[in-house]
Amino acid sequence: MLNIRRLSANATGFRKELDQLLAWETVSNDAVNDIVKEVVLAVKSKGDAALLEYTARFDRLQLKSGSDLEIPTSELHAALERIPQDQREGLEISAERVRDYHQKQIQNSWSYTESDGTLLGQQVTPLDKVGLYVPGGKAAYPSSVIMNAIPAKVAGVKELIMVVPTPDGVVNDMVLAAAAICGVDRVFTLGGAQAVAALAYGTETVPQVDKIVGPGNIFVATAKRMVFGTVGIDMIAGPSEILVYCDGKTNPDWIAMDLFSQAEHDEDAQSILVTQDAAFADQVHESMSRLVKTLPREEIITKAITDRGAIIVVDDEEQAMEMINIIAPEHLELSVEDPQALLPKIRHAGAIFMGRYTAEALGDYCAGPNHVLPTSRTARFSSPLGVYDFQKRSSLIMCSADGASELGKIAAVLADGEGLQAHAASARYRIKKD
Amino acid sequence: MLNIRRLSANATGFRKELDQLLAWETVSNDAVNDIVKEVVLAVKSKGDAALLEYTARFDRLQLKSGSDLEIPTSELHAALERIPQDQREGLEISAERVRDYHQKQIQNSWSYTESDGTLLGQQVTPLDKVGLYVPGGKAAYPSSVIMNAIPAKVAGVKELIMVVPTPDGVVNDMVLAAAAICGVDRVFTLGGAQAVAALAYGTETVPQVDKIVGPGNIFVATAKRMVFGTVGIDMIAGPSEILVYCDGKTNPDWIAMDLFSQAEHDEDAQSILVTQDAAFADQVHESMSRLVKTLPREEIITKAITDRGAIIVVDDEEQAMEMINIIAPEHLELSVEDPQALLPKIRHAGAIFMGRYTAEALGDYCAGPNHVLPTSRTARFSSPLGVYDFQKRSSLIMCSADGASELGKIAAVLADGEGLQAHAASARYRIKKD
Repeated sequence: MLNIRRLSANATGFRKELDQLLAWETVSNDAVNDIVKEVVLAVKSKGDAALLEYTARFDRLQLKSGSDLEIPTSELHAALERIPQDQREGLEISAERVRDYHQKQIQNSWSYTESDGTLLGQQVTPLDKVGLYVPGGKAAYPSSVIMNAIPAKVAGVKELIMVVPTPDGVVNDMVLAAAAICGVDRVFTLGGAQAVAALAYGTETVPQVDKIVGPGNIFVATAKRMVFGTVGIDMIAGPSEILVYCDGKTNPDWIAMDLFSQAEHDEDAQSILVTQDAAFADQVHESMSRLVKTLPREEIITKAITDRGAIIVVDDEEQAMEMINIIAPEHLELSVEDPQALLPKIRHAGAIFMGRYTAEALGDYCAGPNHVLPTSRTARFSSPLGVYDFQKRSSLIMCSADGASELGKIAAVLADGEGLQAHAASARYRIKKD
Repeated sequence: MLNIRRLSANATGFRKELDQLLAWETVSNDAVNDIVKEVVLAVKSKGDAALLEYTARFDRLQLKSGSDLEIPTSELHAALERIPQDQREGLEISAERVRDYHQKQIQNSWSYTESDGTLLGQQVTPLDKVGLYVPGGKAAYPSSVIMNAIPAKVAGVKELIMVVPTPDGVVNDMVLAAAAICGVDRVFTLGGAQAVAALAYGTETVPQVDKIVGPGNIFVATAKRMVFGTVGIDMIAGPSEILVYCDGKTNPDWIAMDLFSQAEHDEDAQSILVTQDAAFADQVHESMSRLVKTLPREEIITKAITDRGAIIVVDDEEQAMEMINIIAPEHLELSVEDPQALLPKIRHAGAIFMGRYTAEALGDYCAGPNHVLPTSRTARFSSPLGVYDFQKRSSLIMCSADGASELGKIAAVLADGEGLQAHAASARYRIKKD
């Protein structure tokens, strides 16, 4: 049998065991920090020259000049022509569905006028320039290009700049094809901390952006943290997680495979089954033990399930909901008869997959919602990547003469109370003299 | 004459000089980092005992037990009774106007159903618990309590926990009164990195929260950066800034005082006037030189204006707009005849104060919009504090049997393309067998 932790929600010491199971902190050690700091400072001060040097060193790619770093748009379209027809169609349908869904997230400017003529509101505008980091090599995912690029484009971002390392010059056609489909404006063959630094500060060749999004390894994540403030960044993602809640009436093979679809991402991924049906828990465990052997990524799955997986048996639906809100999972499957009835009880989850047919994998690729989701319990305070991450707001205040006079009186009193007399004087200038 | 930088937008080397003027990086030095790390770890491991020790050391306040850290709600209401009537009314009107405005920001859950019965959408929920840091001593601002607490409460945050240091046991009645008005749920007499750590990890007495907001000194800011990820945080604010664009037809005294209302915050604050009218620039300079002497905070203002202030003369309105979008100011005053006509050209600003009557100070206290705004050019990618900072979203996906079958085919192709076979298998289980 596949080795997986079996827990009962009522056992002594359960909560402590659960907390230990969930604990995760992405810590950059000092060595990583030092390397990243050096790379970031070098790119900031030497620009293209530093990029060429690091690309030669880390990606074993000798380029003559800064302009060689750019992959021309024609190459993206050539890749789109090259890939198999079913992959091309898959990417195109995925992009279309993701676009349709994200268009519902567009926020619009609003304002209202008070009875004295004072106008208040917010003006919503897109970011000017966004950088999209795409990992190269093994973890090169075209779906990730779609999920990051489409919301930016839907928001109206004028220039979307993608960086993707091409170690030893190897490019991933599906990734380039996805960039073509999404309308990425420029692509540079750059990776690691040097790519992040180039986007944050700009070089002779790479434009400076306003925000950097996209997944990456510990060097990329550390560099993003370092440049945060100079540019915006998205969340630093932890390992992927899934919590499946099942009433015991879904095919156990389906549930086993759904759990594996997270576990196969990497050895730190976390898959948890919650059910009130102890016999069903056994069946899923049996399915997992049988099915794992059929999968190419058996080794990764086995380690992830053994180290960080769990099957938790609860008393009833209510206790299951409690479990969900404690765990605040990135992906939540509600494999039950009436999942909508449970929604009002769910306070924290990145994405909620409802019903027996809604495999989490459908959301990863083509259902429409974003697959960039809050991990490591951060769904308690954050949201899926969306159009709102590429829009920003400016407050609007336009006081009428009457409005300014009335507000001026209040502001002056409070400013004096805070000892800020220039504020008070500035407000009093606008009070009407009788 | 008050010493202020006078620049012409067309002079040689202007852009370089502007960039230097705008440059600002909040850097925590190693000494601060080390102290904060020690404090955070001590609170995480020793809880209340560490809080009592640091409060005795840093705030010279000897408390016997954890429960002494809490200021009972009755004391907040007593403070509200104690303060002068005009201050009480000012705070109450301010809170009401801020509440009215922020209610317009509430985001609601949404969903739609596709023709095959598949449902997609987002569920919007409030954060459970939020911590609000309020500085003590000199920079104790009741308006800051209102601006941070009201959006959280409007969002539906269940428990809002405020921390405010009371050095030597001195409490600020206006701050406590504001907390009473805003319905803050619990208040603890805690400050510095220890307060942030207590909120992030929880102690025997202080509840663990999901997000920490509010301004603070370099120790507080460093601690917030350190606990980010375990909890959410708001932006780390830099010094306050204002850019006033004036067509030359507003009373120069008004403009001078508006510039001072930011400069008086602290010596690093930045006040910039942009105008196409060189004679008006002289008039404002004259007003500033005369008015600064009338203000209690003359010394702070003089230093801020001399070190970081500027008067920039431009050719015309178009060049003024260019200036605004480069500077991306926290506060932007459009002191012109038809400010609304300029809005479509403004891409980056925290808050836009329109017309000659709309002093920035009105927005600080009672106009309605939030006074917590993006500083140091971060308006390029971020927004005023709002209800949206206390709400979060969960994606909703509920596939019909037909929908899952069609999506399953696409997902399987793309998952295979990415080498993720468990994803592919999980999707294929949902494809209908003919």
